[in-house]
Amino acid sequence: MIEVGDLVSVPFNVACGRCRACRETNTGVCLTVNPGRAGGAYGYVDMGGWIGGQARYVMVPYADFNLLKFPDKDKALSKIMDLTMLTDILPTGYHGALTAGVKPGSTVYVAGRWSVGLATAASAQLLGAAVIMIGDMNEARLSHARKVGFVPIDLTKHDRLGEQVAAVVGEPTVDSVIDAVGFEAKGHGGGDQPAIVLNQAMEIIRPAGAIGIPGLYVTEDPGAHDQAAKTGSLSLRLGLGWSKSNSFHTGQTPVLRYNRQLMIALLADRLPIAKIVNAKAISLEDAPKGYAEFDKGIAAKFVLDPHGLLVKAA
Amino acid sequence: MIEVGDLVSVPFNVACGRCRACRETNTGVCLTVNPGRAGGAYGYVDMGGWIGGQARYVMVPYADFNLLKFPDKDKALSKIMDLTMLTDILPTGYHGALTAGVKPGSTVYVAGRWSVGLATAASAQLLGAAVIMIGDMNEARLSHARKVGFVPIDLTKHDRLGEQVAAVVGEPTVDSVIDAVGFEAKGHGGGDQPAIVLNQAMEIIRPAGAIGIPGLYVTEDPGAHDQAAKTGSLSLRLGLGWSKSNSFHTGQTPVLRYNRQLMIALLADRLPIAKIVNAKAISLEDAPKGYAEFDKGIAAKFVLDPHGLLVKAA
Amino acid sequence: MIEVGDLVSVPFNVACGRCRACRETNTGVCLTVNPGRAGGAYGYVDMGGWIGGQARYVMVPYADFNLLKFPDKDKALSKIMDLTMLTDILPTGYHGALTAGVKPGSTVYVAGRWSVGLATAASAQLLGAAVIMIGDMNEARLSHARKVGFVPIDLTKHDRLGEQVAAVVGEPTVDSVIDAVGFEAKGHGGGDQPAIVLNQAMEIIRPAGAIGIPGLYVTEDPGAHDQAAKTGSLSLRLGLGWSKSNSFHTGQTPVLRYNRQLMIALLADRLPIAKIVNAKAISLEDAPKGYAEFDKGIAAKFVLDPHGLLVKAA
Amino acid sequence: MIEVGDLVSVPFNVACGRCRACRETNTGVCLTVNPGRAGGAYGYVDMGGWIGGQARYVMVPYADFNLLKFPDKDKALSKIMDLTMLTDILPTGYHGALTAGVKPGSTVYVAGRWSVGLATAASAQLLGAAVIMIGDMNEARLSHARKVGFVPIDLTKHDRLGEQVAAVVGEPTVDSVIDAVGFEAKGHGGGDQPAIVLNQAMEIIRPAGAIGIPGLYVTEDPGAHDQAAKTGSLSLRLGLGWSKSNSFHTGQTPVLRYNRQLMIALLADRLPIAKIVNAKAISLEDAPKGYAEFDKGIAAKFVLDPHGLLVKAA
Repeated sequence: MIEVGDLVSVPFNVACGRCRACRETNTGVCLTVNPGRAGGAYGYVDMGGWIGGQARYVMVPYADFNLLKFPDKDKALSKIMDLTMLTDILPTGYHGALTAGVKPGSTVYVAGRWSVGLATAASAQLLGAAVIMIGDMNEARLSHARKVGFVPIDLTKHDRLGEQVAAVVGEPTVDSVIDAVGFEAKGHGGGDQPAIVLNQAMEIIRPAGAIGIPGLYVTEDPGAHDQAAKTGSLSLRLGLGWSKSNSFHTGQTPVLRYNRQLMIALLADRLPIAKIVNAKAISLEDAPKGYAEFDKGIAAKFVLDPHGLLVKAA
Repeated sequence: MIEVGDLVSVPFNVACGRCRACRETNTGVCLTVNPGRAGGAYGYVDMGGWIGGQARYVMVPYADFNLLKFPDKDKALSKIMDLTMLTDILPTGYHGALTAGVKPGSTVYVAGRWSVGLATAASAQLLGAAVIMIGDMNEARLSHARKVGFVPIDLTKHDRLGEQVAAVVGEPTVDSVIDAVGFEAKGHGGGDQPAIVLNQAMEIIRPAGAIGIPGLYVTEDPGAHDQAAKTGSLSLRLGLGWSKSNSFHTGQTPVLRYNRQLMIALLADRLPIAKIVNAKAISLEDAPKGYAEFDKGIAAKFVLDPHGLLVKAA
Repeated sequence: MIEVGDLVSVPFNVACGRCRACRETNTGVCLTVNPGRAGGAYGYVDMGGWIGGQARYVMVPYADFNLLKFPDKDKALSKIMDLTMLTDILPTGYHGALTAGVKPGSTVYVAGRWSVGLATAASAQLLGAAVIMIGDMNEARLSHARKVGFVPIDLTKHDRLGEQVAAVVGEPTVDSVIDAVGFEAKGHGGGDQPAIVLNQAMEIIRPAGAIGIPGLYVTEDPGAHDQAAKTGSLSLRLGLGWSKSNSFHTGQTPVLRYNRQLMIALLADRLPIAKIVNAKAISLEDAPKGYAEFDKGIAAKFVLDPHGLLVKAA
Repeated sequence: MIEVGDLVSVPFNVACGRCRACRETNTGVCLTVNPGRAGGAYGYVDMGGWIGGQARYVMVPYADFNLLKFPDKDKALSKIMDLTMLTDILPTGYHGALTAGVKPGSTVYVAGRWSVGLATAASAQLLGAAVIMIGDMNEARLSHARKVGFVPIDLTKHDRLGEQVAAVVGEPTVDSVIDAVGFEAKGHGGGDQPAIVLNQAMEIIRPAGAIGIPGLYVTEDPGAHDQAAKTGSLSLRLGLGWSKSNSFHTGQTPVLRYNRQLMIALLADRLPIAKIVNAKAISLEDAPKGYAEFDKGIAAKFVLDPHGLLVKAA
């Protein structure tokens, strides 16, 4: 079905399309593309050794299954800055929001940091959420979040999140929480606190509410300071969540489960995702510079453009 | 709708039937019957101060909403040992199995201890599971589990659960795991290890699988040895679950969501739950003796019988 | 929980809150409030004899269960034209869209006529639909539909609906179809054709797609011309739907299942429903005049205002 | 993943594994294997021209996707009479029961005829149903239904189905209805009445209940007597279903969505499906004879055995 010259989106997951996991639409944990464990991805440690996607060309196995073809090439080119987000960040945020039970009228808190927080907030909006807060510690990102329609929560102030939530929605709880940060979380003082996002999530989630966890938690972190973190262990107040009958939904998004419908939404102008994540196209050669700026905390999502297509569009 | 003389089942949850949680069928976290927090129950600390159900008479608020009437009193009396399980243990096990995604053909591991493990296994069977294992450390209960059709896993041997699972189903993983133990878990050596059940659950659950957690985790445990346990914190290998895209479902069962359909199943002889949990009726006066035997590890579920109804039936 | 002076929304369904149907959130088919059959409603034939809501005062049974209280009275008054739609038309449209499987990126066709079509389209938008078409035969309503952001389909032209759909979305099928018309449907020539909407729905729905049917179909229509219509029978091309594995979802909306979340969405300015349905407040005395205009085909939704509250707001 | 010598099950659906429908697990309406319309199947008119499966060899396209491999060949051979039902009849019945909402405690009515009715009843049992009735007109099949644990309903008596249902469950309604007959239905007098099953289903289904329709309804029936039947039109009392908020679920089962889990259930002895449908192995040469007997109404399911494997096992 895929032909030379088609313009396509490549999910960051590699999936075979025929194992039990793929047949059940769990393409994020395909059972055959990674000898080490379930799930494959391009250019990431421990994910099957597939050569990364930040390149001029990439080899895509099971291409008929994995590739999403854009139906109208010219129209797609005119929206290519938005459509590039289908590879990873938008389905990731969407999975987080969906598994957190976001629906029309929901009040939502997104633990942000990096642009995946913004993509999660954007997904919550598309799902009909009424109020969407993003917590972050980066001033530029907080300011950008406000500009694109979300309620910024400045986490450098203190760590009594319930108070800040109550100031927005009138009660210290929300319907859905999404942890778009993961184990690299920091406390309001700036130190590493890998469990703080999830523990705060349990404080502010409503009874019977769900917590979506697209933020990465690693199985092992050899460079961590303490023994618990080395084995990927977190000190979680699970009793708090248990007392409220909460549920927790972890893992990589299965991109293929969502990218087609999100593509249609983008093509129909339902979601200005490039603007929301503040996308900026750069050449492949400028990638190291982009990473450096990103590390410094710039509130932008860099899109690599090996063929000079996006730079022009932008 | 309820009249004097009706024979009814009283859910252990107290619920108002009109708050948001109740309207959404989350009667386990009713928002109005407990001034302290969401959720009320009879005779349990921190659950709203409702006088307990182990009594000759009990005051049931919102009775039209809370009570489940048995349609045919005579038939109900003939199955009363089974029907008493509708109050708590059977919906608890059913909720655990259902939220763990058990369905026809599932392979299931239940972390047992006490009779709620057996009720969970029974629920998995009713949901069509193909293979149901129960892990326990009590020899009498393991032997009883085998007798009523489940595969016992002796946890006193060692703590490499994957090996024991593989010996039964040919692979070290199962489709669904239910933690029917909670924070009072012990390691195979017998010492307190409040996180061991959940950490083992993450080891043996399949990619994209769900873990049901009807076993109680407390928000605070003032009598605990270490600081973490005092605040209800557990050291969980969440990174392991994250890498497999697992989900976690906690909390008290909302009894009213399930007890009607389970009642019909019991009345139709689909599930000999009294036999499976080894129910024994005792008088109210013998309750202290029953508790003492239970603490010693007897593999039985005592049913209090304040009016001498069950003792005769048994 | 409800107190004198509260501002509330009254669902058009009457429901007891304690029967099996209500406990399962199916308040549209409450088993106890109508001796004749399942389901009660105010002021409608065959729905339990409850005196109608187009009045200065209305008696609401089981008020704690049935009423939805607006949390902030002043804020609610400022949006009262939107909030009045929570009683009926918005949850009706939302139920139709939801049961038709509308989600982010969906292409949707709404068989319109009257303002419930617009409320359905508005609901589809809130659910994230990408393209929303409304078919109608009334020029004023079609023009209004376009003005508020939907794609009007003029059904007076011909009855080859697939062609018109293809002209909009590039293929003769859509993801979801909602029949917001019911048995009073007419063919493009204007004659009664009670089955035409559903038969056309089966033509344009995609394989495995769902059809939501909030439009009323009656059990009996004594005034109908032919015998089939008298018994509520329709000549349906079910084989066409069967060959595409379609599903069909009928019935009154259970208002209480949706009105709280929709209220939050309205209060947060997510959906200008009053504007979309072109709401106009009139006094109770002007009601007959409003009905007469409505019958003439005016593209407006009249809101009765017995206490002079809305007339001022408008 | 499939190798020469593997023992496999071939779903009767042909599916590509990579179109939108297949990616969404709707393999019964694959978009690419049939130029004429959605959905392909072996040896059936209008389903893509795939040569039939009642043969010594069959060509299976997209074999890695379509084939279900039995994990243990020897064990599979010992249960081969049961496992052959995974190709068609068991997933068909299971789909019908599942879409009709059957769950633990359900009361179920299956409109039977042929062995797919028995497979549906068996599926309802696996899903935990409390009471399962099968309506049929064939005395031998009714008698067999009783023998394998279901409640036979003799439809030759009269067509007041509610009365017969009430005699079994105490009320004239059931939780779930499955139409395993389709358009070739007959009235109790024996004449063709293509709409009778669905119209009776609407009479006996409970409010808010679902009707599963795995029984075939054709888009066209050129040999039919009247014009309506020629175009696959039925005279349905949809108003009756609408008044009770029923839903209707049609179409071929997507075999791949269910066959793996059903295989595990069969291998674990959860469902003696061969015994329930009264399976009898015959040689390929005896197939015409088998069809002739089947047409005469024998209560058996013939399994063709081109390689002499089953005849021995039987």
